[in-house]
Amino acid sequence: MKKLFAEFFGTYWLVFGGCGSALFAAGIPNLGIGFAGVALAFGLTVLTMAYAVGHISGGHFNPAVSFGLWAGGRFSAKELLPYIVSQCAGAIAAAGTLFFIWSGKTGNVIDNTKAGAFASNGFGSFSPDGYSMVSCFAAEFVLTAFFLLIILGATDKFANGKFAGVAIGLGLTLIHLISIPITNTSVNPARSLSQAIFTGGEPLNQVWLFWAAPIAGALVGGFIYKMLLQKAETE
Amino acid sequence: MKKLFAEFFGTYWLVFGGCGSALFAAGIPNLGIGFAGVALAFGLTVLTMAYAVGHISGGHFNPAVSFGLWAGGRFSAKELLPYIVSQCAGAIAAAGTLFFIWSGKTGNVIDNTKAGAFASNGFGSFSPDGYSMVSCFAAEFVLTAFFLLIILGATDKFANGKFAGVAIGLGLTLIHLISIPITNTSVNPARSLSQAIFTGGEPLNQVWLFWAAPIAGALVGGFIYKMLLQKAETE
Amino acid sequence: MKKLFAEFFGTYWLVFGGCGSALFAAGIPNLGIGFAGVALAFGLTVLTMAYAVGHISGGHFNPAVSFGLWAGGRFSAKELLPYIVSQCAGAIAAAGTLFFIWSGKTGNVIDNTKAGAFASNGFGSFSPDGYSMVSCFAAEFVLTAFFLLIILGATDKFANGKFAGVAIGLGLTLIHLISIPITNTSVNPARSLSQAIFTGGEPLNQVWLFWAAPIAGALVGGFIYKMLLQKAETE
Amino acid sequence: MKKLFAEFFGTYWLVFGGCGSALFAAGIPNLGIGFAGVALAFGLTVLTMAYAVGHISGGHFNPAVSFGLWAGGRFSAKELLPYIVSQCAGAIAAAGTLFFIWSGKTGNVIDNTKAGAFASNGFGSFSPDGYSMVSCFAAEFVLTAFFLLIILGATDKFANGKFAGVAIGLGLTLIHLISIPITNTSVNPARSLSQAIFTGGEPLNQVWLFWAAPIAGALVGGFIYKMLLQKAETE
Repeated sequence: MKKLFAEFFGTYWLVFGGCGSALFAAGIPNLGIGFAGVALAFGLTVLTMAYAVGHISGGHFNPAVSFGLWAGGRFSAKELLPYIVSQCAGAIAAAGTLFFIWSGKTGNVIDNTKAGAFASNGFGSFSPDGYSMVSCFAAEFVLTAFFLLIILGATDKFANGKFAGVAIGLGLTLIHLISIPITNTSVNPARSLSQAIFTGGEPLNQVWLFWAAPIAGALVGGFIYKMLLQKAETE
Repeated sequence: MKKLFAEFFGTYWLVFGGCGSALFAAGIPNLGIGFAGVALAFGLTVLTMAYAVGHISGGHFNPAVSFGLWAGGRFSAKELLPYIVSQCAGAIAAAGTLFFIWSGKTGNVIDNTKAGAFASNGFGSFSPDGYSMVSCFAAEFVLTAFFLLIILGATDKFANGKFAGVAIGLGLTLIHLISIPITNTSVNPARSLSQAIFTGGEPLNQVWLFWAAPIAGALVGGFIYKMLLQKAETE
Repeated sequence: MKKLFAEFFGTYWLVFGGCGSALFAAGIPNLGIGFAGVALAFGLTVLTMAYAVGHISGGHFNPAVSFGLWAGGRFSAKELLPYIVSQCAGAIAAAGTLFFIWSGKTGNVIDNTKAGAFASNGFGSFSPDGYSMVSCFAAEFVLTAFFLLIILGATDKFANGKFAGVAIGLGLTLIHLISIPITNTSVNPARSLSQAIFTGGEPLNQVWLFWAAPIAGALVGGFIYKMLLQKAETE
Repeated sequence: MKKLFAEFFGTYWLVFGGCGSALFAAGIPNLGIGFAGVALAFGLTVLTMAYAVGHISGGHFNPAVSFGLWAGGRFSAKELLPYIVSQCAGAIAAAGTLFFIWSGKTGNVIDNTKAGAFASNGFGSFSPDGYSMVSCFAAEFVLTAFFLLIILGATDKFANGKFAGVAIGLGLTLIHLISIPITNTSVNPARSLSQAIFTGGEPLNQVWLFWAAPIAGALVGGFIYKMLLQKAETE
C-alpha cells in the first residue's frame, strides 16, 4: 500500500511541477523560464521524488516505465495494474490542482484549439512546432526507449546505483530539451492523460499516441537492455 | 549554539543569494538570468549550505521546514523557537546587506506599490502575474507540503541519504521554477518576513499569508510522510 | 561485444540528444533553449549514458576520448578500431533518425550553405560567429585536451571516482557553453562526421579539422595527465 | 611539484572556461548563454577540476581560497606563495590563449573604456550595471566569505565530503548568478589579474579591489568557520 501512495504522490509531483512550470512560468515575457526551464522542472520532479520515495516504490511515476521495467525483467506483471492506476490517479489529481490554481488569474481559460493548451501533448497541427504524426510517434518511441536504457542501466547491480536518481531525473530533462517543440514531450502516458482530460477536444482525441508510442518504446528499450547490454550474473 | 550560528548563516545565504540574484541580475536586458536563474540561485543556496553546515544544524534555514520536521517526528518542539529566531535574524541581516549594496546604484529605491518590490512576496494585485489570494495560498500550501515530502523522504534512514542536499536544494529550484509568477515564491516565512520589513506597505500587510500557508503545508506534508509513506522500523 | 553495443547506443544518444536539441529546440522564438540548453543537452547525454552503460564499455562515445585514454595508458591500442567503428555507426544511425523526424515538418530542408546547418561543425565562414580556421583549430585542440584531463583525473584510482559521470558530463556542457559560437563545438569526431555526411557540401569538406584537432588535443591531454599530474603508485 | 601543475591547469581552466564563455557566447543575439550561462560555466570549471585534480592539490585555483584555507587552519603558510604563483601563471596563460582565439574574428579588439571589456572586473563606471565602489567591495567581501564557509564546511571531516566538488562548484555558479551585474564577479584575484593585464587602462587600475576584497572576505570567512561553526574533535 505504501508503494501505491508513493507512486500517487510521485506522479502528482511530476505533473504538478512539470506541467505547472509550463503553465505558470514558461511564457512570461522577458523573464519566463522557456522550454529549458520546463525541461529542468520535469527532470527535477523525478530527481527529487526518486531520492524521496524511490526507496519505497522504486520510483516509476510513469506507466511506460513500469512496462519497460517489466520487459527488462525488473518488475512483476501482477503489479503493473495497481501501479498504473495509482500513477494515473496522482496525475489527474495534480492536473485538477493546477486547474484550480491557474484559474485564479483573470482570463486563464483553456483554449483546446491551440497546440499545447493546458500543457497537453499533440501531433500534426497540435504539435507545438508542426511535426507530423509519424515524426511525433518516432520521437516518443525513440526517447522512451532510451529513457528505459538509462533507467535499467543506472539501476543495474553492476552500475554505480546511488546516482540513478540523478541520471534518470536529468535524463528526463534531456528528453524535454530535445522534444518539447515536437510533441510538447510526453514519454509518460499518465502525464498525457491527465492534461488531455482537462483540455478535451482534439488533444483528448490524440492521447492514444501518447500511450502507444511511449509504451512501445519502453518495451523495446527494456528488451534491448536485457538482450544486448546486460551482463550475465557470472561476468 | 553552533547549531544556531549554522541556521543564522545558512538562512542569511538563502536570502542573500536567492533574493540577491532576483534584485541584481534577473531583469538585466538581454543578458539577465530571468526567473530560471533565480530559481537556480535559491536552490543552490540550500544545496551549498546543506553540504557546508547541514552536519551542524540539520540545515533547515526555514521556519516552515522546522515545523514540518517536527510534524514528521524528526525535530523536537523545544528547539523550534531558537531555530526560528536564528533563521529570521539571518534573513533580516541578509536583507539589510542586500539593501546596502543595492542602494549603491543611482535610482535604486524600493517602490512598494509594485508586485515583487525588493524581492517581496505577494498575492492578488501584488502577485507578479496577477493570481488571486486563494490561488496563492493553495500554491504555497501544496509546494511546501511537497518540499517536506522531499526533505523527509530524502533524509529517511532507508533512503540514499548522502544525496539529500542535492534533492532538497534542487527541489527548491523546482518550486521556484513553478511559482515565481504566482507569489514570487516563498515556502519560507523567514525569507518573506525579511523582504517585507524592508519593503513595507502592502507587501508587509500580506506577509501573514507567507507564514500561514507554508507552515500549514509543511505540517500536512510532515504528517502525510509519517502516516502514509514512512516504513516501519521492522520492515 | 556488449562493449561495442554500449558504445553504439551511447554515441547514438549523444548525437540524437545533443544535435537533436540544437535542431528541434534551440531557435524556437522566445521559448527556445538557446546555446545554453544545447550545451546542457550534450552534457546530459554523456552523464546519463556514463551511469547507464559506463560499467559496460567505460563510456567513451567519442573517438578522441578513446585515443586520449590510450595516450593516458588506460585503453589498449587493439580496441581502438572496433570502438571507433561502433561510435561512428551509432552517430550515423542517430543522424539518420534525426533527419527522418526533422523532415516531418514542412520546410525543414538542409541548406548546406549556412553555418551550423543540420548541427554540423565548421570554421571560417562556416563558424557560427565567424572565427578563423586557426582559432577554430586552437579552440577544439585546447578544449579536447582539457576534456581528457577531466576524464583521466576524475577516473583516477586516487580520485573520487563515483562522481566521474557527473564531472565528465558537465565538463562537456561547459565545453559547449564556451565554444558553440566558435565551431558549433565538436571535440568529438564521430559527432562531426555523422552530421557532415547528411549535410554534405562545405561542412563535409571541413570535417577533417574536427578529426585532426580533437584527436591531437586528446593525445596531448592524455600525455600531460600521465607525465605531469598522475601520482605514482607508491605515493 | 604535481600540486603546482594541478593548480596551474585548474586555474587555466577556470579562466579559459569562465571568461571564455563570457567572451565568446554570452552576448550572441537570441541564442546566447547570457549571465546565467556564464555563471554555470564558471561553476563547472571548478566542479570538473575539483574531481579531476582535487586529489592532487586540494583544488584551490584561487589565491583568496588559499588564504581562506590558511585562516581556517587547513593550509600551511609556507605553501601560500607557490600556490598563488601557479594560480596566477595559469590564469595569465589562459587569458593569452583566449586573446589568441578571440582575435581570430574580424573586429574583436579590446575596448578598455567599456565595463567588462575582455571579461575584466570593475566598479563604479566599470561596474556592468553601475554599482559604486563601496557596493562592489561589500559584494566581493561577502560573497568570498561565504564561498569559504562553503569550502570549509563541505570539506569538514564531519561533513559528507564526497559532494564537496559539487557544492563548491555550484557555489561559484550561485555567486556569479548574484553578482555579474555588480562587479562582473571576481571572488578570485588570479582571474581578475589575468583579464586586467590584457585589458589595461582603467580595469587594470581597479584590479587592487579584486585582490583586497576577496582576500579580506576569505580571511573573515575562514575565521568565522573556525571560531563559530567548526565542531571540536571530541564532539
